[in-house]
Amino acid sequence: MTANDSYEVTKFSKVRRLPARGTYDKGQIDGILKEGLTCHVAFVADGRPVCIPMIYAVLEDKLYVHGSIASRLLKSMKAGVEVCVTVTLVDGLVLARSGFHHSMNYRSVSAFGVAEPVTDSVEKERVLGAVVEHIIPGRNAQLRQATDAELQSTSLLSLKLEEVSAKVRTGGPRDDEEDYKLPIWAGVLPLSTAVTGQPIADARLPVGVNIPPHVTHYSR
Amino acid sequence: MTANDSYEVTKFSKVRRLPARGTYDKGQIDGILKEGLTCHVAFVADGRPVCIPMIYAVLEDKLYVHGSIASRLLKSMKAGVEVCVTVTLVDGLVLARSGFHHSMNYRSVSAFGVAEPVTDSVEKERVLGAVVEHIIPGRNAQLRQATDAELQSTSLLSLKLEEVSAKVRTGGPRDDEEDYKLPIWAGVLPLSTAVTGQPIADARLPVGVNIPPHVTHYSR
Repeated sequence: MTANDSYEVTKFSKVRRLPARGTYDKGQIDGILKEGLTCHVAFVADGRPVCIPMIYAVLEDKLYVHGSIASRLLKSMKAGVEVCVTVTLVDGLVLARSGFHHSMNYRSVSAFGVAEPVTDSVEKERVLGAVVEHIIPGRNAQLRQATDAELQSTSLLSLKLEEVSAKVRTGGPRDDEEDYKLPIWAGVLPLSTAVTGQPIADARLPVGVNIPPHVTHYSR
Repeated sequence: MTANDSYEVTKFSKVRRLPARGTYDKGQIDGILKEGLTCHVAFVADGRPVCIPMIYAVLEDKLYVHGSIASRLLKSMKAGVEVCVTVTLVDGLVLARSGFHHSMNYRSVSAFGVAEPVTDSVEKERVLGAVVEHIIPGRNAQLRQATDAELQSTSLLSLKLEEVSAKVRTGGPRDDEEDYKLPIWAGVLPLSTAVTGQPIADARLPVGVNIPPHVTHYSR
């Protein structure tokens, strides 16, 4: 597990529960991080765990989370803050013959480490562009440029991807052998994050501004 | 904020970042918890934060998370473990004229407190049924009953809903006044967790077992 294409397994990143579902493969982990939209960031404040949903992006070997200079996370840190960042994709409900064997198909990544503030303006602008592109590819180039004041009041944390693992479940239900004869429908219901309505144009759009392909053709 | 229909605001549950988005209203919080499918549970292990996606259900004034007796969370606890449980619903991408004002419409709930193991078999069976119903209403009554061995090997944690807050963002982009004239499409792209494919029947279904309405009519 120390080959270049896998993350090293540590005490924290090691998948303990159902280890067969665990993977440390960089390609698979990068794919999950690309597909995810939000992450949950856990940190410790006054000795207590806190878990906050945040927007993120990955550039090279770092995961960046996007917060505010006023947030609890950023206020509590000086040089850096120990975090666990988790991205979870739900792929489907696994409906078995017993409650016990019900499950979900999912892919989740957890990255552990010390998140550090990004302070350089040039770097901030590059990362914020990547965050927009992560959320909706094709959009960043169409926006007006960030101002110095915006860059200053935006806080970013970077986490080097070193201690990382993923858990993945795929496939149908695994029932007890004697349950397969029961007259209970079983299988998988595919779910995911999807566009569930027409785009709602802002009321103050100037006349003649058409909806761009990066919005009409959006999917994750 | 101490009325019966709101949770008390504490140092931890208080929404600091953009407090106008915060709410402590029990009805709104219960609605978010009902609609969510998975939660992220943060806890502290060996002084480090850990964040794990889990399945949950709410019954009366408690949130139950469903783990395994082998999981790190349950191994690390004796009488109880301090947790922060967060449920996040993404409702849409908010596309502004500048990167800075891009946002998401979302609803998230965080509940803080000490999670305790559920050990009573009768209670476990009731909660596990509620977990199945939370995930797919109408299904639990159609399943075979849980066995004693299954109940014993399933671990559940309960967290009393006392220190709870929600954050909610709705509506379109709020751009800088001078940006409204720019020829950039802006608005909201609605997103949610949705069924994204036909149900996939298990290969070993007996002949004549039809797909039930709780599967064909599923939505969140």
